Amino acid sequence: MAELKFDVVVIGAGPGGYIAAIRAAQLGYQVACIDDWKNSQGGAAPGGTCTNVGCIPSKALLQSSEYYEQAQHHFGEHGISTGKLSIDVPKMIARKDAVVKQNNDGILYLFKKNKVRFFHGRGSFVRAVEGGYEIRVQGAEDHLLQAQQVVVATGSAPRALPGVPFDEEYVLSNTGALQLSSVPKRLALIGSGVIGLEMGSVWRRLGAEVTILEAMPTFLAAVDEQIAREARKAFDKQGLKIELGVKVGGVQVQRKGRSAGVSIAYTDASGQAHELAVDRLIVSIGRVPYTAGLNAEAVGLALDERGAIVVDEWCRTNLPGVWAVGDVVRGPMLAHKAEEEGVAVAERMAGQLPQVHFNTIPWVIYTSPEIAWVGRTEQQLKAEGVDYKVGTFPFLANGRARAMGDTTGMVKMLADAKTDEVLGVHIIGPMASELIAEAVMAMEFHASSEDIARICHAHPSLSEATKEAALAVDKRTLNF
Amino acid sequence: MAELKFDVVVIGAGPGGYIAAIRAAQLGYQVACIDDWKNSQGGAAPGGTCTNVGCIPSKALLQSSEYYEQAQHHFGEHGISTGKLSIDVPKMIARKDAVVKQNNDGILYLFKKNKVRFFHGRGSFVRAVEGGYEIRVQGAEDHLLQAQQVVVATGSAPRALPGVPFDEEYVLSNTGALQLSSVPKRLALIGSGVIGLEMGSVWRRLGAEVTILEAMPTFLAAVDEQIAREARKAFDKQGLKIELGVKVGGVQVQRKGRSAGVSIAYTDASGQAHELAVDRLIVSIGRVPYTAGLNAEAVGLALDERGAIVVDEWCRTNLPGVWAVGDVVRGPMLAHKAEEEGVAVAERMAGQLPQVHFNTIPWVIYTSPEIAWVGRTEQQLKAEGVDYKVGTFPFLANGRARAMGDTTGMVKMLADAKTDEVLGVHIIGPMASELIAEAVMAMEFHASSEDIARICHAHPSLSEATKEAALAVDKRTLNF
Repeated sequence: MAELKFDVVVIGAGPGGYIAAIRAAQLGYQVACIDDWKNSQGGAAPGGTCTNVGCIPSKALLQSSEYYEQAQHHFGEHGISTGKLSIDVPKMIARKDAVVKQNNDGILYLFKKNKVRFFHGRGSFVRAVEGGYEIRVQGAEDHLLQAQQVVVATGSAPRALPGVPFDEEYVLSNTGALQLSSVPKRLALIGSGVIGLEMGSVWRRLGAEVTILEAMPTFLAAVDEQIAREARKAFDKQGLKIELGVKVGGVQVQRKGRSAGVSIAYTDASGQAHELAVDRLIVSIGRVPYTAGLNAEAVGLALDERGAIVVDEWCRTNLPGVWAVGDVVRGPMLAHKAEEEGVAVAERMAGQLPQVHFNTIPWVIYTSPEIAWVGRTEQQLKAEGVDYKVGTFPFLANGRARAMGDTTGMVKMLADAKTDEVLGVHIIGPMASELIAEAVMAMEFHASSEDIARICHAHPSLSEATKEAALAVDKRTLNF
Repeated sequence: MAELKFDVVVIGAGPGGYIAAIRAAQLGYQVACIDDWKNSQGGAAPGGTCTNVGCIPSKALLQSSEYYEQAQHHFGEHGISTGKLSIDVPKMIARKDAVVKQNNDGILYLFKKNKVRFFHGRGSFVRAVEGGYEIRVQGAEDHLLQAQQVVVATGSAPRALPGVPFDEEYVLSNTGALQLSSVPKRLALIGSGVIGLEMGSVWRRLGAEVTILEAMPTFLAAVDEQIAREARKAFDKQGLKIELGVKVGGVQVQRKGRSAGVSIAYTDASGQAHELAVDRLIVSIGRVPYTAGLNAEAVGLALDERGAIVVDEWCRTNLPGVWAVGDVVRGPMLAHKAEEEGVAVAERMAGQLPQVHFNTIPWVIYTSPEIAWVGRTEQQLKAEGVDYKVGTFPFLANGRARAMGDTTGMVKMLADAKTDEVLGVHIIGPMASELIAEAVMAMEFHASSEDIARICHAHPSLSEATKEAALAVDKRTLNF
């Protein structure tokens, strides 16, 4: 097999990998990117978990199910009448698949445009060679590549419950949760993180009776406590059953017959034993770094005890010329964090000195209401002994939210008590995912709450709630 | 009549007036606010044009009609069937009225909370007195007030076509356009500004055949030309008929009988004569400062030839202690501009030195796609001889827009060729009204396009298009 030589080989074409490949190519490198993901026809499906079974398809289903929810529960207020409302789940899923394919094809187009050579197959280390590494591609065609620099962006995989493997028919990971061909009558989720809440929301809106079992005693522990309480209230109202402090005992799967389904034995927070029988179970208890098949040991690439590739602040591994980015390394498993690392790594190869600011990476949960935040939570500031001020503003007092008919939630701003610098912005409510961008921008410029309070915001817009939350820090809200 | 003494009297409780009153009260002044607006029961309806017949009710109807449009044209893609769809227009209007009343009542509550004394009636100058002014309130009860400082915030009124007064039944201003009890089969609009496009969109979505006649030869002349072209394309596709360079001759209104309606004689851009027969006509050819009944001459308050109150940069009129803000003075007729001036005037009375940055006031048109911008357009930069760079990014290449199924439009960024400082951001597309907040924040901090390009944006979000437009300025988009 002829060895193909590149300056840079990127293993994995998720958000970290494909972006690193494109940026490296823009900077003048000869770049290859290897990715194994297959679509249902066996073709290349670059984009990783995010594009194929994460961010993108979940947002497609959230949009579809949100329309259904609006039509079912809110059209009446607007004077809109429908006949019998129904959802064709396979059609909804097909639309989602089409959106995913647009994104897959988009990435293939971007590779062409940027002259990144794409290899469809599994990339693995063969050995270190003079001035670089040998990488094998195993796919429909096999290839042997050589590169001076390697970027590992192999992502993460869903964590299974011990002894309960995913079958994607009854016991579902995010993959199966996005592929159901009908609405399960009874759906259980183990784990109330982002994926659990998003998937629970989709199927609840379409008619499933949803129960979420969470081991932690607090709901959304990473979220600002006040915001998490608001979220809990909203989800309760929607009919999502959420049980905290649960200890799951056994999970039994019955794959055939009239009683096909899943039975979950658990004890609740008070220690009482329960048996929950459902049609489908989604397990969303976190994700683990994914390095299976990478053959890291062939070159001595160091992993930590969680299986993550060990990197420094710059995404350098223990091997010269080998970088790693995204879910496979430390830090939050967020597509946009991976992208920023991808760009940064490419630029560092070229001798540039980019920075990735971990403290201004936004977080989003795309439920309804949406939840988004940047910076520190109130409980973090307390724990750190930081002296802070708080301002909140409810969407109930926001003109646009009223006009939209969607007034759940609030904007909460935390600022340093002495300097007034904004330390965190926490939003629950309509379009929180988009409103957070302004807060990130402000924090990147070390804005004070006074700065935000003095900046003109379009009327009527939801973003006025951010301005009012800033005014609230100084106890001078104008509209509340 | 006993004279009631105040530190500050504000005439008008629109966005400029009520905000000025609240801010002045926060700063320790004894404040009265006078407003004449009545709801359908004759009760107080503070909030001015914005709340009663502008921003708020139009957004309520835009939301309702947008749902109808989605259900009619887009639910199918998502697999949602609705059966027979219909709209109960009086119910839609009643919801809108309820939203307006929430906002009216909200302002009355804010007055109470902030100890602003509200007077329902028409405020007018009586005379200058030692250390202040006498102001008469004429309403259900009459009052005579005295104040050291007066803020005039009397707003604006729709401009009528010469010889064609508004009857709000056949010839409608924004007021009548928001009160139709059924969908007109054929609707004409004279004037394609913000109000015309928003109202045309509402009634077009609900089934009206809409023709917009515009005197100007260019569409949306104030908008960046490239964005205006995109808008025109989108509106054409939706079936809004827009005729530019039109000269309206006569307008005949037939109020009775089978042929009741409006006939408009006009010549098109090529000089050809037409006669357009419609059921209703909306005239939206601009607004004029409103000072009727203010009795400005009694105190010698100076107006300009357009009828606007003459003010300096600080909103000071020619009279000591008399200020004026909002639509009744120079500058754009935008609620949030009025609010900023209202806050600033109250703070100036208290000796503070606030600034209102006119160059970072955002503009929004709430059509679908929405249009929003801040800073200068490309044609302005050309005219001013500024050396600039351009970056654009289409929503077609944005993952969230794809997942939402709404990919019309783009973000366009203009930056100084030498310093890279952002000079303007122009957005047409989904949620442009909210996305613009980030751009305003960036421009307030004199961000460069490089700054925006390097700031992490949540994935998937529409705001990533702003980041990519910033990357495009440097010709290094990652996703296009």
